[in-house]
Amino acid sequence: MNSFGMKLKFSTFGESHGKALGCLLDGVPAGLEIDEEFIQAELNRRKPGKSEFETARKEDDKVEILSGIFEGLSTGTPIAMIIYNTNQKSKDYTNIKDIFRPGHADFTYFHKYGLRDYRGGGRSSARETAARVAAGAIAKLMLKKLDIEVLSGLSEVDGIKSENFNYEYAKQSIIYALDSTKENEQKQRILNAKNNHDSVGGVSRVLIKNAPIGLGQPLYYKLDAVLADAMMGINAVKAVEIGDGILSASSLGSQNNDEICKAGFKSNHAGGILGGISNGEDIVMNVYFKPTPSIFKEQHTITTNNEEVNFSLKGRHDPCVAIRGTVVCEAMAALVIADMLLLNLGSNMDKFVQYYKT
Amino acid sequence: MNSFGMKLKFSTFGESHGKALGCLLDGVPAGLEIDEEFIQAELNRRKPGKSEFETARKEDDKVEILSGIFEGLSTGTPIAMIIYNTNQKSKDYTNIKDIFRPGHADFTYFHKYGLRDYRGGGRSSARETAARVAAGAIAKLMLKKLDIEVLSGLSEVDGIKSENFNYEYAKQSIIYALDSTKENEQKQRILNAKNNHDSVGGVSRVLIKNAPIGLGQPLYYKLDAVLADAMMGINAVKAVEIGDGILSASSLGSQNNDEICKAGFKSNHAGGILGGISNGEDIVMNVYFKPTPSIFKEQHTITTNNEEVNFSLKGRHDPCVAIRGTVVCEAMAALVIADMLLLNLGSNMDKFVQYYKT
Amino acid sequence: MNSFGMKLKFSTFGESHGKALGCLLDGVPAGLEIDEEFIQAELNRRKPGKSEFETARKEDDKVEILSGIFEGLSTGTPIAMIIYNTNQKSKDYTNIKDIFRPGHADFTYFHKYGLRDYRGGGRSSARETAARVAAGAIAKLMLKKLDIEVLSGLSEVDGIKSENFNYEYAKQSIIYALDSTKENEQKQRILNAKNNHDSVGGVSRVLIKNAPIGLGQPLYYKLDAVLADAMMGINAVKAVEIGDGILSASSLGSQNNDEICKAGFKSNHAGGILGGISNGEDIVMNVYFKPTPSIFKEQHTITTNNEEVNFSLKGRHDPCVAIRGTVVCEAMAALVIADMLLLNLGSNMDKFVQYYKT
Amino acid sequence: MNSFGMKLKFSTFGESHGKALGCLLDGVPAGLEIDEEFIQAELNRRKPGKSEFETARKEDDKVEILSGIFEGLSTGTPIAMIIYNTNQKSKDYTNIKDIFRPGHADFTYFHKYGLRDYRGGGRSSARETAARVAAGAIAKLMLKKLDIEVLSGLSEVDGIKSENFNYEYAKQSIIYALDSTKENEQKQRILNAKNNHDSVGGVSRVLIKNAPIGLGQPLYYKLDAVLADAMMGINAVKAVEIGDGILSASSLGSQNNDEICKAGFKSNHAGGILGGISNGEDIVMNVYFKPTPSIFKEQHTITTNNEEVNFSLKGRHDPCVAIRGTVVCEAMAALVIADMLLLNLGSNMDKFVQYYKT
Repeated sequence: MNSFGMKLKFSTFGESHGKALGCLLDGVPAGLEIDEEFIQAELNRRKPGKSEFETARKEDDKVEILSGIFEGLSTGTPIAMIIYNTNQKSKDYTNIKDIFRPGHADFTYFHKYGLRDYRGGGRSSARETAARVAAGAIAKLMLKKLDIEVLSGLSEVDGIKSENFNYEYAKQSIIYALDSTKENEQKQRILNAKNNHDSVGGVSRVLIKNAPIGLGQPLYYKLDAVLADAMMGINAVKAVEIGDGILSASSLGSQNNDEICKAGFKSNHAGGILGGISNGEDIVMNVYFKPTPSIFKEQHTITTNNEEVNFSLKGRHDPCVAIRGTVVCEAMAALVIADMLLLNLGSNMDKFVQYYKT
Repeated sequence: MNSFGMKLKFSTFGESHGKALGCLLDGVPAGLEIDEEFIQAELNRRKPGKSEFETARKEDDKVEILSGIFEGLSTGTPIAMIIYNTNQKSKDYTNIKDIFRPGHADFTYFHKYGLRDYRGGGRSSARETAARVAAGAIAKLMLKKLDIEVLSGLSEVDGIKSENFNYEYAKQSIIYALDSTKENEQKQRILNAKNNHDSVGGVSRVLIKNAPIGLGQPLYYKLDAVLADAMMGINAVKAVEIGDGILSASSLGSQNNDEICKAGFKSNHAGGILGGISNGEDIVMNVYFKPTPSIFKEQHTITTNNEEVNFSLKGRHDPCVAIRGTVVCEAMAALVIADMLLLNLGSNMDKFVQYYKT
Repeated sequence: MNSFGMKLKFSTFGESHGKALGCLLDGVPAGLEIDEEFIQAELNRRKPGKSEFETARKEDDKVEILSGIFEGLSTGTPIAMIIYNTNQKSKDYTNIKDIFRPGHADFTYFHKYGLRDYRGGGRSSARETAARVAAGAIAKLMLKKLDIEVLSGLSEVDGIKSENFNYEYAKQSIIYALDSTKENEQKQRILNAKNNHDSVGGVSRVLIKNAPIGLGQPLYYKLDAVLADAMMGINAVKAVEIGDGILSASSLGSQNNDEICKAGFKSNHAGGILGGISNGEDIVMNVYFKPTPSIFKEQHTITTNNEEVNFSLKGRHDPCVAIRGTVVCEAMAALVIADMLLLNLGSNMDKFVQYYKT
Repeated sequence: MNSFGMKLKFSTFGESHGKALGCLLDGVPAGLEIDEEFIQAELNRRKPGKSEFETARKEDDKVEILSGIFEGLSTGTPIAMIIYNTNQKSKDYTNIKDIFRPGHADFTYFHKYGLRDYRGGGRSSARETAARVAAGAIAKLMLKKLDIEVLSGLSEVDGIKSENFNYEYAKQSIIYALDSTKENEQKQRILNAKNNHDSVGGVSRVLIKNAPIGLGQPLYYKLDAVLADAMMGINAVKAVEIGDGILSASSLGSQNNDEICKAGFKSNHAGGILGGISNGEDIVMNVYFKPTPSIFKEQHTITTNNEEVNFSLKGRHDPCVAIRGTVVCEAMAALVIADMLLLNLGSNMDKFVQYYKT
């Protein structure tokens, strides 16, 4: 239950304040050049402590590859990657050892398992997503071979919405803002919340370009369903929409249908997916993040002994988890697309025969 | 890829205009009383042709159980259920044999597989969801043993939103409306669209009551992620939100966190799920359906030979797929919860030992 | 848990004396010509009541395809096949309703599930293997496209071993004997046992010809491991060996290694599999069946109330389950090879890219 | 494809001459005391270089746990374990860089993947089994809680068969011999082969004691089928038998059936499994290992350029891979049983309801 994907499968391990995090990526075809600098660069985009908009915890998130590569190429065997934790301050957490932090998984883990690793949220910490980004980077290397791109950015913070989506701009924005004209106000909202010992929610927008027609396995491993699974499973995500999403629920069929002409679809309300299968258009998603539950304001809760208490959280936390979260959305989207590319092999008898006969 | 679930797994088969639809449900514990009338009653809630708000195709959707039951009890072996198609009018579809209907899976299936069963959408038809409802009915029988209820209703049609959610009312509303004060306007919108040869979108709201704390397997089979997968995989669904969902993305942490007191959570912005695990509160979801793509208005599209054409669809179609869709959401939610109940067994060593020692 | 395979997956349902048996086959590439007569012919090879060497239960085992085929071709959607039971004589079983038959699954099913369908063994009956043969027939149709053949025959009965293996001869032998010079003695042993109200064991030998190099996914879905799983899972099988198998355990490395020359391997002690992956040579297996546990001799056992009793079984039973079992071995082997062919797609990056770029 | 198990799942990574080996074990219930010394002790039983009967490669096989444990207890999250390679001598392999060693996976890996890590067999090396033993040790800790024991020993070497099976004796025998009266001759055979630059095959016998009735999930995750899969997947295994196995194929039903009395089964020809489900008796298996393919005698083979060559292997190799293999059999058997215990939860509706209601 710590694995994702069918043909390209990754499994992650590790806790926020344990020795190390890591992931196992299984199913990468043999012969892919593994660009370790690219993997590290992807991790650097997610790593904490880069600016005042993020947690102050400083982690290098230096990835080490332990297996699956020989002379620079994937060998078809599992690629294990490990990231040692270096900047744990577990003492910050002794005061919440017996407390269920509101909005956190403390309460549910404790009741499910009968115990919990309280140091920084243990396994439920978003720190685990570093392992997803490492796996996602290798998925991206696969996608590059087919000119498929996965892009993303922050489209909304605390209700301040982007009006246009410039993915190139987002790459160099410190908050991955998609709209340069909204970036300052978005930043201001984050700092306001931070200064008030509070946090804010946000929305990541993900774009997948050049995915071929035919990705997605009906009826219970549809592309949109698996993307929804992948996104909703990211820490703090509370809603996912594909294409026009929520808007389409208040549309008429005549508005929402994408008519087709020789050159392709005339519009893209569907967000690139029909019947759970990619149609060759841009795949577009919006991923909604709740505000970081870790806030410094005093809150009311109960202890593991069911006593009510007021408490103020310590430690180091992201004021807006959607910022770094958008990098995780990208990684997960890349993993889903790579998996679907592999699963789609063998959909068609002629191509299947051709694979073996040539 | 036509299966869903881990420990309680169902697989479906069948096409809209084929001989039969059906499902295999595997993993039901032995000794459950199988109330066949209840299963049929659930199918009746979904079956078409009950009112002017639905397609005119008349199907009895009479379910027959072929295996897995002995003397009224489940035996622990797979329960196969079959529903014969009786009211196909495949001739309605010969004129679209070579046409890709906008908003439909015709285009993607054809390109993925190199051929398609064009009769009524074949496998991609929402008719397949009858099989889900049959499986879901048995899941509900399991849930009843633990007093868990799955309820739903139509909360929004064409932008007309419910202001309160009365699940009991919805049960007897012909459109499963949750808010009696909005029902008439919602009905009117559906009829307007229908009379205009058009269709409308809508939103289903799902409520799961009395789910125990601890359901959901971190980190890649989280309760919310699997529910998102299950809902997004239903035909025509374009967005899913859990709890406050989209709203939480424009909230502050201090607003969005649910504080805890001895009696339980003071609020339920989280929608009953924390860290991917149920917290004992009501689980609440909104599921957004696009308008039925099948409309009678003239539309522009291409043929399988890449020629542009204008065409008008014939056949019988739902003007608002969200109505019958809400029954499918319930079924899928029940299946997810039952699966999670089974998966959760063995989370805790003491309970595991106790299971075998007593 | 009633499914087998990863990419080509089949699921079966049904009990010996229930309404019907059937299977769902998911993952067949679209565009395969489905020769229904061939499927029926395969079922006819396994069906009971053809001779004095088999149970007297007469079943036509007429298969009906319910889905997944359109205009004679597979569509890439699940192929459901159903076989109605017609010749149940459940009354034969009322006298063993409360008795655990020695050598049968009665005891274990009852204790695992708390109840059991006692009619003819219910789900644990070898009658279920009809569904495997139906699925296996379609796998064979896939393999034919690549000129891969799966053959088998009875190599040993009650200790009478074949000295040569003529798979063509076996096809028309009523007991599927591989060695015509041993056939009469083998037949005699079966009839002797039958006349003594007893049963005999036997060995099926399976040969897979023309499998390409590279089938099998290391390290936990190896070709030999999955074949062992598939064979050991067939009713009454108690041992499986690949290639020289048991003999190799008493060999020297210098004897057992297959040296290689330009033309290929000089010998085939390995049985066509090295490191869990096919090496292009014939794949050879021996599958050991115990004698049918259903015998008419008086036996000692206990009842569900833990009372000791002597009883004599009634009903109709195979004196040598290995005869019809060999057809099931073939079907399972074909399903494994077809699955491995699909899984192997995407092992190599160059071929993966080529698949999408052409 | 580098994972095994359904509910208790482990995944392994690493190559013989890579940086490290390791495994991820997912699904261990929370609250199990993790005895790290026991895990290391199990690894020590398998580690190479302990005697003249094993390869001279010296590896400490020191295991480090990276995650999943908190304050000595499992937390329900994945347990990652890592073993660094320390004694690689990759130079030994440069001379076989372009050669396919007979009996090895060189040929099949190269053709499947288009490249291979030739250093010590890379991923196909039996060195990977260290990771299985680490996982198996934790499975054993789970089994101890239910008083289930998994034992094994070497029952046959080069045709010298044990006549009695003393599992306690085997624990302290340097070759894990089950029969002290045969041990010397078995040792002599190994040394003879070694001195002749050759290798010998052998048989491991595995005994599982105290497994409860009811383990095994019919019909495609049967206990015997999964054990066969697990054993056949171990490097060099060519045959697996359960209970009387091969012998039962030449038995009569009246001999082979195990009659039942109040005190239990009167015999155990079945090897503790009926209908794929444990029956409460000892579970007994024999696992047949071929001789190590790595021998120092000159052999004939081809190169990657399809040129014929004679060559003599260098490096350090086990003369009888069955010795250390028996420890791996035990580990795999323990993992299978622990998985089956978890899967069996929820077979019965009453126990399912009781789990949640208490």
